[in-house]
Amino acid sequence: MSTAEPLKTPRTTIRRLPKRAAYDRAVVEGILDEGRVCHIGFVADGVPFVLPTIYARVGDVIYLHGSAASRMLESLATGAEVCLTVTLVDGLVLARSAFHHSMNYRSVVVLGRPRLVDDLGERSRALRAIVDHVLPGRWDEVREPNAQELKATHVVALSISEASAKVRTGDPIDDEDDYALSVWAGQVPLRVVAEAPVPDARLPEGIALSPSILADARLSPR
Amino acid sequence: MSTAEPLKTPRTTIRRLPKRAAYDRAVVEGILDEGRVCHIGFVADGVPFVLPTIYARVGDVIYLHGSAASRMLESLATGAEVCLTVTLVDGLVLARSAFHHSMNYRSVVVLGRPRLVDDLGERSRALRAIVDHVLPGRWDEVREPNAQELKATHVVALSISEASAKVRTGDPIDDEDDYALSVWAGQVPLRVVAEAPVPDARLPEGIALSPSILADARLSPR
Repeated sequence: MSTAEPLKTPRTTIRRLPKRAAYDRAVVEGILDEGRVCHIGFVADGVPFVLPTIYARVGDVIYLHGSAASRMLESLATGAEVCLTVTLVDGLVLARSAFHHSMNYRSVVVLGRPRLVDDLGERSRALRAIVDHVLPGRWDEVREPNAQELKATHVVALSISEASAKVRTGDPIDDEDDYALSVWAGQVPLRVVAEAPVPDARLPEGIALSPSILADARLSPR
Repeated sequence: MSTAEPLKTPRTTIRRLPKRAAYDRAVVEGILDEGRVCHIGFVADGVPFVLPTIYARVGDVIYLHGSAASRMLESLATGAEVCLTVTLVDGLVLARSAFHHSMNYRSVVVLGRPRLVDDLGERSRALRAIVDHVLPGRWDEVREPNAQELKATHVVALSISEASAKVRTGDPIDDEDDYALSVWAGQVPLRVVAEAPVPDARLPEGIALSPSILADARLSPR
């Protein structure tokens, strides 16, 4: 699929506050790559379910995995419509009026019908991508899945062909009259930070932190 | 509704890894109160949509708000089934095998049919709860909604009567044989922190930070 192909469709066209909308593949991919957890929505027995799960993007495909025993994978594997949403919460937006309070955020919505990944090679590459999405380089440090584990893990692929991003940044937008009020207004940025790694209770002494952990700037203890 | 009434129903019974499940109202409420953004799933034209939004819990009700013009509020106001999910990501779980990698997290799923809040008094109390959920005490510092703003804002109420929580904590659980591998394993805790507040570009000099900001321990700059 060409990167120029439009992600905007009638279903992903943002109606509310359209000036916050983006349909550029680069914006969508940037948000997907920064998120650690997505929320996947699917319909089971007519009822929408929304569950958090980890994922990874490889090119224009998002991979999800799970146990063959899970309700989520059971539904996803049928090829029914799903909605995958990733949200990054960037800060509080504190206005001078209650009405104009908001959040700064970046979110992506991807719609489509996932495909069950039958091919063991693709399944293994997808699992590598998911582990390395959480921590780049981790896959090469640990034991790879054996045949039994590969069989017990279902993987689905969702094409990023119908999507939208929504982004809010910056100051509150107050009513003109309210700028005269004597109340502090502005933003409080929020950020996800890592604390110092906690060794497993059964980790023998003398095993150093993995290179993957040391190399990930997002995991540097503050 | 009695707080002893069970939240567990066939639809909210967790099938996958049931030992991570909780149906206690206190656990559910604690996660809802700590989250800042929920993901609300609803079905429109047969397609599931999952959108992030702010919310607040008041007793055994969750309030959501939005513009009367939004697709989300339009769908929610019909009283159709929705799923509201709040997820707190607590850390990376780094195992000795790819298969046992995981995340530590706390999530809540609430199912039900929201009710449109027509009463202006309840609507105003709900909006206060939502503003004060983001920043306790903020409502009393800012201009309250006027009649026009109240009219333009739809509020829906979702009863917390059918819900579940799922919680993972602690070390990775590796296969017994893998404990002999010489690879670092453990947890990397993640935390959302606030950075120093950024004043609005139009804030006059001499207006101090609001008491609500100073009083919120979660917003203390590190």
